[in-house]
Amino acid sequence: YAPTRCAAAQTSTEQGILPPCHHHETVHDPQLVPCTCPLFSCPWEGHLEVVVSHLRQTHRINILQGAEIVFLATDMHLPAPTDWIIMHSCLGHQFLLVLRKQEKYEGHPQFFATMMLIGTPTQADNFTYRLELNRNQRRLKWEATPRSVLECVDSVISDGDCLVLNTSLAQLFSDNGSLAIGIAITTSKVHNAEAEM
Amino acid sequence: YAPTRCAAAQTSTEQGILPPCHHHETVHDPQLVPCTCPLFSCPWEGHLEVVVSHLRQTHRINILQGAEIVFLATDMHLPAPTDWIIMHSCLGHQFLLVLRKQEKYEGHPQFFATMMLIGTPTQADNFTYRLELNRNQRRLKWEATPRSVLECVDSVISDGDCLVLNTSLAQLFSDNGSLAIGIAITTSKVHNAEAEM
Repeated sequence: YAPTRCAAAQTSTEQGILPPCHHHETVHDPQLVPCTCPLFSCPWEGHLEVVVSHLRQTHRINILQGAEIVFLATDMHLPAPTDWIIMHSCLGHQFLLVLRKQEKYEGHPQFFATMMLIGTPTQADNFTYRLELNRNQRRLKWEATPRSVLECVDSVISDGDCLVLNTSLAQLFSDNGSLAIGIAITTSKVHNAEAEM
Repeated sequence: YAPTRCAAAQTSTEQGILPPCHHHETVHDPQLVPCTCPLFSCPWEGHLEVVVSHLRQTHRINILQGAEIVFLATDMHLPAPTDWIIMHSCLGHQFLLVLRKQEKYEGHPQFFATMMLIGTPTQADNFTYRLELNRNQRRLKWEATPRSVLECVDSVISDGDCLVLNTSLAQLFSDNGSLAIGIAITTSKVHNAEAEM
């Protein structure tokens, strides 16, 4: 994980502490984490345990329940940068799906999708998430280990270590401007192997 | 298929005839098809039935056998444009995997992978191909209906209707500069349903 985590996060994220990811000059209370909503420039900081309630109450982000859910991102034509965010509750944890439309190359918006665990990187390593698009006789699946919200979603997306869609593929997978993303969370194989022992 | 097929190919591809895809001014024998090797600028034309032997003999393209194979593309660092090509023989047909490194946006090479049936578009509709990358706790799967080699591989790739990888993802999935692509061909569901009746 080291190369994709914020440089300053290397030593402290395992303790559930987020260092200044966006290079603020302010000194952070080590018990607090900044709000993990991307793009909202939210000044809120709080304990990891209350991030979910903050996301629900302040940002009105919904929670979907179940091991396998479908998130319908509407209005995919909205100009970049735009984020679509949903929380996903399963296996005793809350996950955050971030779908971002962004112009890495000017005039060529792309879609980036990743999942973050609202928990520590150590906890995140126990899971695997799968994003699936399925339409027009095409299917695209991305499977990876979720990142922790204590890491920077910005760097995950700028590194391109996520599901990446160009505009034409996004259109092929969209129905009437909406993209249905199948989401499944499982415990990772290492975790399963340990459980079987 | 219509929007991605060469404009001139609409009426005649079902008969196994390739119109001038690259906008040659010469008149083609309707019984002949140009060589389907992308990027080689090959002047050869021939019947669909002898495309395979032409690819093997003139371009030294190997054939791998079996329903599920792994193609190892080496030297992924080579500069764009570069093609990696393999033939895949299964279910009584030959397929062509084209992996292309290309700079759609200057200075930002991407990898595009697609499969073509060495046969007509009607035959191609009976199959589904799957390309799978699996490494570093990440998995990416792309499933689609193969195109016919009578269509333009160039337009498939420029439309982005294929597996698309940015450089950083390609590196995550590569081992020592080589990318292992799992390839599987199945008969498509429509075909299966007909067979079951």
